[in-house]
Amino acid sequence: MSVEPRVPETNVLAVASHVVSGNVGNKIAVFVLQSMGCDVAALNTVQFSNHTGYRQWKGTRVSAQEITDLWDGLKQSYLDGFDMMLSGYVPGATAVEAVGNIGKELRRKSEKAGRLGSFFWVLDPVMGDNGRLYVADDVVPAYKSLINYADLILPNQFEAELLSGVKITDPASLKEAVRVLHQEYGVPHIVITSVSIPLVSSSIASSSAPQQTGRAMSVVGSTMTSDRQPRLFTISFPVFDCYFSGTGDMFAALMVARIREAISSPSSSSSSSISEQNSDGNESISEKRSWLSGDDVDVLDLPLARAAEKVLASMHEVLAHTAESMTAEMATVVNKEGEVDEKTLHLLKSRASELKLVRNLGCLRDPTIEYRAEKM
Amino acid sequence: MSVEPRVPETNVLAVASHVVSGNVGNKIAVFVLQSMGCDVAALNTVQFSNHTGYRQWKGTRVSAQEITDLWDGLKQSYLDGFDMMLSGYVPGATAVEAVGNIGKELRRKSEKAGRLGSFFWVLDPVMGDNGRLYVADDVVPAYKSLINYADLILPNQFEAELLSGVKITDPASLKEAVRVLHQEYGVPHIVITSVSIPLVSSSIASSSAPQQTGRAMSVVGSTMTSDRQPRLFTISFPVFDCYFSGTGDMFAALMVARIREAISSPSSSSSSSISEQNSDGNESISEKRSWLSGDDVDVLDLPLARAAEKVLASMHEVLAHTAESMTAEMATVVNKEGEVDEKTLHLLKSRASELKLVRNLGCLRDPTIEYRAEKM
Repeated sequence: MSVEPRVPETNVLAVASHVVSGNVGNKIAVFVLQSMGCDVAALNTVQFSNHTGYRQWKGTRVSAQEITDLWDGLKQSYLDGFDMMLSGYVPGATAVEAVGNIGKELRRKSEKAGRLGSFFWVLDPVMGDNGRLYVADDVVPAYKSLINYADLILPNQFEAELLSGVKITDPASLKEAVRVLHQEYGVPHIVITSVSIPLVSSSIASSSAPQQTGRAMSVVGSTMTSDRQPRLFTISFPVFDCYFSGTGDMFAALMVARIREAISSPSSSSSSSISEQNSDGNESISEKRSWLSGDDVDVLDLPLARAAEKVLASMHEVLAHTAESMTAEMATVVNKEGEVDEKTLHLLKSRASELKLVRNLGCLRDPTIEYRAEKM
Repeated sequence: MSVEPRVPETNVLAVASHVVSGNVGNKIAVFVLQSMGCDVAALNTVQFSNHTGYRQWKGTRVSAQEITDLWDGLKQSYLDGFDMMLSGYVPGATAVEAVGNIGKELRRKSEKAGRLGSFFWVLDPVMGDNGRLYVADDVVPAYKSLINYADLILPNQFEAELLSGVKITDPASLKEAVRVLHQEYGVPHIVITSVSIPLVSSSIASSSAPQQTGRAMSVVGSTMTSDRQPRLFTISFPVFDCYFSGTGDMFAALMVARIREAISSPSSSSSSSISEQNSDGNESISEKRSWLSGDDVDVLDLPLARAAEKVLASMHEVLAHTAESMTAEMATVVNKEGEVDEKTLHLLKSRASELKLVRNLGCLRDPTIEYRAEKM
């Protein structure tokens, strides 16, 4: 059937913000993961009327104590059997610690059971963007002390700088940031989700669809080797001439499903990956700690690279549909631009730029891969 | 494409409880509605670790003031343009009033705009079941003063008794309860979601699939005529030998999508319904207040009856899959029944009986209709 789950049975704990209206945080993660067939436990760290990009909202944050209480509630009823965890926006350093304790506990449980591959934590260290911190200062050290427990982290360029302490200005400093995160923090998988420095001279920049800018951006990913050396790849994609909220959250949620898919489906992997699955006895990659590929696996055959290609394919299709309906929606507003004040215009633009997810289920589940990973 | 939305663009405000793990309330409603293509604003009235059927849980209720604040947050940013509202479990009488005020406001807005069919409120008056009230006493009058603003209410048998003041013991008293709700409260559409008195001698009772009991239950629905007379139908379906939580919530969410579909797709409706759409000038049923069918429409051609058939078809398939995996999951537990105490066994049973929704997307979207509406 065409609506078969995309992943094997997967219990995911998703910890992020909830907005009543629109799409950011868990509002994206829960639907994206469910649409791929994941069973999602959604621990909401805030309940706001809308995302903060509107510049006004109402609602409440959940305290660190409430996060811990909800986790205790799950444990006492045998509801803590999670295969994966996705942690996104968490309000404040003590709440980050509370979420960190959940991840550490799940990690310890998998170790104690001797099933190192049975838990995989995708951590999106939400702290800021474009050189601006939008959390309290003490959130940065809270994440620094946590990322060595995660399997995959998804910082944007600014967050990668904060975590690694390396200012990213060119390919060399970018590589150095990834090296620090692998070697000093021991993070097995990294994807830097928005790299604006020029990396590869791609043909993408010549693309000129109506809503596209002609500019390209890149993600840069790496899965470390057994001696913590980077295996770096990059994927470039065209940039739309619109501002979207929640793209990082959509990237993270899709990545959870696609990395699970990539390590679970030998039939869809390349031949070198199939041989990898039997390279050391019968242990498949899904049983290994952090789903780490053997050192002989080429960078372009990494599950992380294959997953990232699919993630970006879905992203591109959803953003294209969003940009299209946004243009139509704003056309009516812009006509009366003289009539509405700047604040109202901003609110209407924010509403029009909400990601169009639910009516584009096919883009999430079966995207066409257009942008391929390249070795760096 | 096979994953095309099932409904036209529909903005739904869903107000109900949120559980981190498992499926009740908004955890069901949001996914079910999204999977049908509805854009859902989810206002969560509680955040609990799990549903209360486990007999233990942690988390917090949202206050009436917070509900009102979130609604104000939506309004101030032009995010209150809802086509439909689904209200489910609300904790306490003042919170019921707060939710009621949202429904009343949306109703007034549609009246003020002269677009009477532009807002449709499905109200599930969650109060109790099987003769037992599980909310505070003052919630009952709170709902009584509210239901005349709703378009469709979905009480179970006990809730229908509470609202109508009629004890339901036989077909005659059942009809009287529906008559009271139409005539005295002016509720346009009613479905009583679990009627255990014998109504029709159906062939269903002879069904004997492994997890089925051989017993049948019924829903009873009615859309009133212009002089508030009932048009009653019933659909009987087999009962599974398991206790499920969240069936009422799944029914309500599916009903929201299917009633929208039924009044939006003339191509899928019967010929008499097509002619109905042009019976008074060019006004289609979707433009009429409460989407009320003309008096000439036969009971079995009512959008409510056609929607209910599809809803029950999805329900039956999801419950069958849930019962199947529950049997498998409990087999391992029951083997060691001597080893686990009664409390643990109850917790494991509760977990095993969580509705299996996300991996049965096809059952939600494309069920096979097996149980047909009959005139009462």
